[in-house]
Amino acid sequence: MASTLLSARDLRFLLYEWLDAESLTRRPHYADHSRETLDGALELAERVATDHFAPHNKANDANEPRFDGERVHVIPEVKKALEVLAETGLNALGLPASVGGGQIPHVVASACSAWFQAANLGSSAYPFLTVGNARLLLAHGTPEQVDTYVRPMVEGRFTGTMCLSEPQAGSSLADITTRAQDAGDGTYRLFGNKMWISAGDHELTENIVHLVLAKIPGGPPGVKGISLFIVPKYLVNADGSVGERNDVVPAGLNHKMGYRGTVNALLNFGEGAHTPGGEPGAVGYLVGEPHQGLRYMFHMMNGARIGVGAGAAAVGYTGYLKSLAYARERLQGRPLGDKDPANPPVPIIEHTDVRRMLLAQKSYVEGAMALVLYCARLVDEAATADGAADRERADALLDVLTPLVKSWPSQWCLEANSLAIQVHGGYGYTREYDVEQHYRDNRLNAIHEGTHGIQALDLLGRKAVQGGGAGLGLLVETARATSARARGLGGDEAEFAGLLDAALDRVVRTTAEAWANGDPAEALANATPYMEAVGHVVVAWMWLEQLVAAHGRSDAPGEAFYTGKRAAAAYFFRHELPRTGPRFDLVSSRDRTVLDTPADAL
Amino acid sequence: MASTLLSARDLRFLLYEWLDAESLTRRPHYADHSRETLDGALELAERVATDHFAPHNKANDANEPRFDGERVHVIPEVKKALEVLAETGLNALGLPASVGGGQIPHVVASACSAWFQAANLGSSAYPFLTVGNARLLLAHGTPEQVDTYVRPMVEGRFTGTMCLSEPQAGSSLADITTRAQDAGDGTYRLFGNKMWISAGDHELTENIVHLVLAKIPGGPPGVKGISLFIVPKYLVNADGSVGERNDVVPAGLNHKMGYRGTVNALLNFGEGAHTPGGEPGAVGYLVGEPHQGLRYMFHMMNGARIGVGAGAAAVGYTGYLKSLAYARERLQGRPLGDKDPANPPVPIIEHTDVRRMLLAQKSYVEGAMALVLYCARLVDEAATADGAADRERADALLDVLTPLVKSWPSQWCLEANSLAIQVHGGYGYTREYDVEQHYRDNRLNAIHEGTHGIQALDLLGRKAVQGGGAGLGLLVETARATSARARGLGGDEAEFAGLLDAALDRVVRTTAEAWANGDPAEALANATPYMEAVGHVVVAWMWLEQLVAAHGRSDAPGEAFYTGKRAAAAYFFRHELPRTGPRFDLVSSRDRTVLDTPADAL
Repeated sequence: MASTLLSARDLRFLLYEWLDAESLTRRPHYADHSRETLDGALELAERVATDHFAPHNKANDANEPRFDGERVHVIPEVKKALEVLAETGLNALGLPASVGGGQIPHVVASACSAWFQAANLGSSAYPFLTVGNARLLLAHGTPEQVDTYVRPMVEGRFTGTMCLSEPQAGSSLADITTRAQDAGDGTYRLFGNKMWISAGDHELTENIVHLVLAKIPGGPPGVKGISLFIVPKYLVNADGSVGERNDVVPAGLNHKMGYRGTVNALLNFGEGAHTPGGEPGAVGYLVGEPHQGLRYMFHMMNGARIGVGAGAAAVGYTGYLKSLAYARERLQGRPLGDKDPANPPVPIIEHTDVRRMLLAQKSYVEGAMALVLYCARLVDEAATADGAADRERADALLDVLTPLVKSWPSQWCLEANSLAIQVHGGYGYTREYDVEQHYRDNRLNAIHEGTHGIQALDLLGRKAVQGGGAGLGLLVETARATSARARGLGGDEAEFAGLLDAALDRVVRTTAEAWANGDPAEALANATPYMEAVGHVVVAWMWLEQLVAAHGRSDAPGEAFYTGKRAAAAYFFRHELPRTGPRFDLVSSRDRTVLDTPADAL
Repeated sequence: MASTLLSARDLRFLLYEWLDAESLTRRPHYADHSRETLDGALELAERVATDHFAPHNKANDANEPRFDGERVHVIPEVKKALEVLAETGLNALGLPASVGGGQIPHVVASACSAWFQAANLGSSAYPFLTVGNARLLLAHGTPEQVDTYVRPMVEGRFTGTMCLSEPQAGSSLADITTRAQDAGDGTYRLFGNKMWISAGDHELTENIVHLVLAKIPGGPPGVKGISLFIVPKYLVNADGSVGERNDVVPAGLNHKMGYRGTVNALLNFGEGAHTPGGEPGAVGYLVGEPHQGLRYMFHMMNGARIGVGAGAAAVGYTGYLKSLAYARERLQGRPLGDKDPANPPVPIIEHTDVRRMLLAQKSYVEGAMALVLYCARLVDEAATADGAADRERADALLDVLTPLVKSWPSQWCLEANSLAIQVHGGYGYTREYDVEQHYRDNRLNAIHEGTHGIQALDLLGRKAVQGGGAGLGLLVETARATSARARGLGGDEAEFAGLLDAALDRVVRTTAEAWANGDPAEALANATPYMEAVGHVVVAWMWLEQLVAAHGRSDAPGEAFYTGKRAAAAYFFRHELPRTGPRFDLVSSRDRTVLDTPADAL
């Protein structure tokens, strides 16, 4: 029976028939890999996700982490699953071989990750945050920091976190007050409180490596005075063993609507619960240069944003497959026009509105997964393409796509999960089925790692205009190349190419019109509708890419894979893309309704 | 401090400045009422909802009903709240004085109900189902049945349920198999299983009156053979006291994502747990004529559908007010362009995207509440208007509006709750705040009492075309009368009148185009986008109605009520109504994408 987590068939299509992941193995960086090792990793990920992550997804939800005032308790299944992950090397598939990682192409590592996210978003957050943490240290840490912290992460002995937010300063990092005093011995002592720390405390691993934003007294004000520190839960001895407890302790846990498998903690630094070496403060080690912390952290944050989109896509995907399986089995009602109660009831997939809800989900989740893997492929391109120009191009494209790959799946794969509930009817609203948890889990994705609104400001306020709009121009040009190819294929492909070109024209025109009078307040007043509309255009492009890749391919007997791709693409172009028209109109008109509404009228 | 449940100011506007509820007290049926008694009821409802329902809303969620194999346990706060409701008469405000009810205009009773729905959807379901049950028996029961069952409901001693669905037949009532054997003594004996029974078992009251759809053997097949029965949990003695246990017992409870305060049970009828009088089967009493059960049940069901929309609107409303209060208090970040970290942070309501999320919520929840109360006003009109023509007109308009008043708030006030979470940021995703529960509670509303898809088939397949489209024609004509008035007022009102008229034209044209070739499969393939678009047009009409009512009124010093109404109306006309264009295009084109997608391609 096919998995209801993800479609291995679709992943093969996306990776090999579309994104030509196999060709990456011909690059020096990935030379140890072959189609065989890539397939092996994907199959292993599917198996481990299915056998060790999916089974305790509900248990994670029903038994959220508990804080007893001193220690954080997580159900034992999580620890076991993470151990299997480390034993199989799946936890560090994409990390370099130099630290013991699998050094597999990022696009394949992302597809592997998606299995875990679909199976158990809560448990998979621990290794994924750890990988992000490791990548940051590999990019900006000293060789000694890499040896001390990254290697144990690869071995599965340490996990990592990112500590940005503070209770008084959620998205506003300029206002953080955690301070780092120079201890005079090459280390710092940190004092402050951090909020919303995922995987912030637990006993799943020997140690936890916190990457903490803090201010060194005397530095510049605001974000320019933020530095980045490694603050381990336990100090690490010279031989690599775990030593004295550091002064970072949980002050409490957040109790969430979903995503409950991941501990989310308020952490106190340097409040005197412990005094390493008898001195007050949490011991911290500066990463890179002082006052460059935010820039370094964005290295991790950008990866995390793509990861959030990937998680949203994966959770949307499994909801789709589960509602599809339900719709094929559940017998109810009769076809339209058949009022004869003597006729047997039919599977509900025969009802048009149920098919609509399935096709809509398919168009959202496969579109989102395509976007996620396209971006992951750009990460490979940015890191390993032969020419510097290709690498820069990939970097620039990734830069403009990041707010979209974060926000679009967060919005539309949540909608997919809502439709998955709806397909199940009343059953979908009960905890006896899986889909209501997916819906609750997925709702976080529009909030963490930069809210939906912040992504919109990033897109229209920064990415779409910086460098004279070069990033957005590159995006449009790249998408136009797709439509040029599609146009040559005739049929639906040519029709949809025309629709995509028209939509890309709207993107260009609307961006200019939003900024026509150069007033940021007016331009950005409708940043969110702008981002949502551009996201739809980009996903339409992803669908046209898939159609082009599917062109000329026929379904094997008993399969309807390419037929399904064509149907979902048609759905997206006919039902979804047209929705952008009125949104672009609104942004183009620089509508001031919101801007002009006084706060006291609300 | 203003309530964060609902806005009493807005309710006064809707009831008195717009819907002229006071004029109803000049009709004979409501002659015992005056503006004073109406206001008294509204204030009492606010107070009881605030003091006795809101405080245990979270407790209901955290401690869902529990079945010990024999009895269903509900937290004690619910029983206390229902007792206060009965003591104050608020449980039966809209029922006739002849049975002890308040006989207050339905539109005012609905506004009173909204306070309870906003405060505690779970607890308020018990009295609301009871009122629906009572209304059905008043319309179709014998005087004896009314005395035996309705009077104790008014006194708060009995609650009521509606038992339609069965495990094998959710929305497909033709397939129900519960059977009712004629016992030869004027009673029947019922055998079968009913699923999804809200308030299906508990010990909150002395007795529970189940209204049960069942088939009398030998009757016509399908829905034409369905009859309606009263099946009390305990048989009622001749003196009105509660007697022998009847053979209806819970077989289990459903564990829901939200709406947890309301018991939802699987009930077994006549499985031998009890044998009243020593005979097998649950004792049932026929309501009205045999085989007319579905028609009677729709009496209750139509009321329940309006009630679902009302609940969705109320829960959306309280989420809006709570996120508004949060946005006024929470300090974070600085205005666009102010990068000076030395400046103090501002309340987040100053950020445009937060204002957008608040204004969107306002336009959804006040628009939905207007639609709900407009429909409630039509119920009064249908029951008490002077002329038969007026009564028929109100009935016809209500008929076509029912699928919309059920579906639109269920969709858009859920979206409002999602925005309320988003305004709260990470806090909104935690159970420390209220809004995540509202979001979970509200998600049920698109499922129960006829799913979203079933409402769409009802609208485009039945209501929009029956009688040559007379009902829809009446709707359009009534809305055009509003735009004619608005046009005369100039300004925004005239502009929006033009937009509404154009949208009404689209409704008429699209309906005709959907049915142009008379093929139901093709017409109804896009019934859901049709309903969603028509819903938006109807809510735009509700906003224009409110603008007309607000015309010429100025805000008192320190108030910005009318300013807010105008802003929300402008938001709806500029940001929301235009969304309908592409949806109508799709329906008009009779797009076959969904219809032509084979099930195996999904």
